[in-house]
Order: sequence, then structure tokens, then C-alpha cells
Amino acid sequence: VIEDFQHVCITCRDLERSIRFYETLGLKVVKRFGEVTAAGIATAFKLPSVRMNVVHLGLPAAASSMFIDLVQWSEPQSTGDAYPTLINIGLNRLAFRVSDIDATVAVLRASGVSFLSGEPQSFGPGYRGILMTDPDGVFVQLLEISQS
Amino acid sequence: VIEDFQHVCITCRDLERSIRFYETLGLKVVKRFGEVTAAGIATAFKLPSVRMNVVHLGLPAAASSMFIDLVQWSEPQSTGDAYPTLINIGLNRLAFRVSDIDATVAVLRASGVSFLSGEPQSFGPGYRGILMTDPDGVFVQLLEISQS
Repeated sequence: VIEDFQHVCITCRDLERSIRFYETLGLKVVKRFGEVTAAGIATAFKLPSVRMNVVHLGLPAAASSMFIDLVQWSEPQSTGDAYPTLINIGLNRLAFRVSDIDATVAVLRASGVSFLSGEPQSFGPGYRGILMTDPDGVFVQLLEISQS
Repeated sequence: VIEDFQHVCITCRDLERSIRFYETLGLKVVKRFGEVTAAGIATAFKLPSVRMNVVHLGLPAAASSMFIDLVQWSEPQSTGDAYPTLINIGLNRLAFRVSDIDATVAVLRASGVSFLSGEPQSFGPGYRGILMTDPDGVFVQLLEISQS
């Protein structure tokens, strides 16, 4: 029986560059696995072999225990590109709830983060959101909820 | 300040088909928005306009309040294909924690779900996992954790 969401995996081209980005957002490295080569993962993933560098990034103070499984593959190498648009079929956006979206955006912008729109937008009554992309082009959304 | 993970968005080609798949896994429709056309979303997503059918799928009994924002776009239409492999750059895998992976896999297989491997595999000490794809090819992972 499914108990809960556990993580989302983001495959990246440069692990340290992606770690810096998610740390800028406020996530913390909660575990560094180093090089992972488990044969069972190759079988489960239908790959001839597995060699990847893995880090878990989470929010230790958050209610959920969700985390990002951040992976840089070396065998096979990480390949391809992230979805170019938000209408692409697939798992194409990761959303975080924020407490004060205007202040958060100002702080992140001062840290060099770019957003897809100038200001947070209304997504409907009580919801304000803004989008950015991570260093590989993954869409990341911030959402402030003033009523539920 | 980022407070917590809130949701992941899956863009699909056929909303009802995807709902049936995630309900088979045990998720529940927690909210049906019907057609969403908020102009703010178009601005935030850098799209000329927005017309999409949106459903939230969650796990009401779970500790986290994470959910899947399941979206079928009609304007523009959902387009493209999900990542073909697990080494593709991007947000490419969604993982759920399960309580008894062998029993869960048996029940899902009896419901017509196919997996990438015959049996759950060891992902390392205390971790057993298995992968499947949703109707659009999104990689979904089940993970049983016998120690943390």
C-alpha cells in the first residue's frame, strides 16, 4: 500500500552547480551518497549499468519529509534536455509553498535567481505564484497561499 | 521563505485515463478544478493564454500534504513526450513509499499495471524499489524502506 510521497528525482548535468541553486532556495543537503553503483538499480531502471553521484536535498524544518533525489549520472552519462515548456507531457514542474512570496522573490533575485515573470501572479483567489528554472531548465514554482 | 514541498505537476494527454491510473495506485482525487483559464498563470508560465483541465490527486491519510497537480492542456494543447529514460536531464521520477512492496506489486499487477523489472530490486541496504510508467510514460517508483 502506498503510504506517502517520498521524493522526486532531478537528473542534472553538474551536481555541485545544482546543489548551490537549491541551497539558494533554502533547501539543505540532508545526505550525500557519493558514487552509487547498485546492480539492483540497473535492473530496476532497465539500464546496462549504474554509476551516479547522488545527493538528497530536503527541508529539515518542514512538515513533510519530501526531498529531492539529485542525481548526476556518469555511466551512462546524464543526457538530453529538460522539457522546454510547461505544456510538455510529463513530470514538468516542482512547486514549493512559501510564506511571503514578495520577500522571498526579492531575496532570491538579489542572489541572482531569474524568474519567468516580473512579479508573482494571481493563480486564482488566495493563490499567488511565480516560476523559475533550475540550472538545467527544470521548472520550479513558488506558491503563496493566503487561504485554503 | 520556502516552507515545504507543495506539489508536482504532471501534464497528461488524457486526464481521465491518468486519473484512473493514479487511483489504481491508491491516490484519491482531492479536488477537481474543471477548466482553468487564469490570465496570471499565462503570464507566470510565459504562455499566450491558458486553458487547462486540472485535478489534484493526493493521499488524504498520509503525513505529507503533497499532491499531484494533474493537468491536461487544451490551449495550448499538451505536447511532446515524457523523458524516454531515467538518465534524461530534468525532473524525471516520482517516488512513493510503500509498506509492503511485494504485496503492493502483486495487487497492482493484478490490476493491469506493468513494471520495468520482474521483481522489486535492492537499491542498497534496507531499500527495495520497483519502477513503472504512467499512461504518458512518466516514471513512477515504489520504495519499501526497512531501515532509515
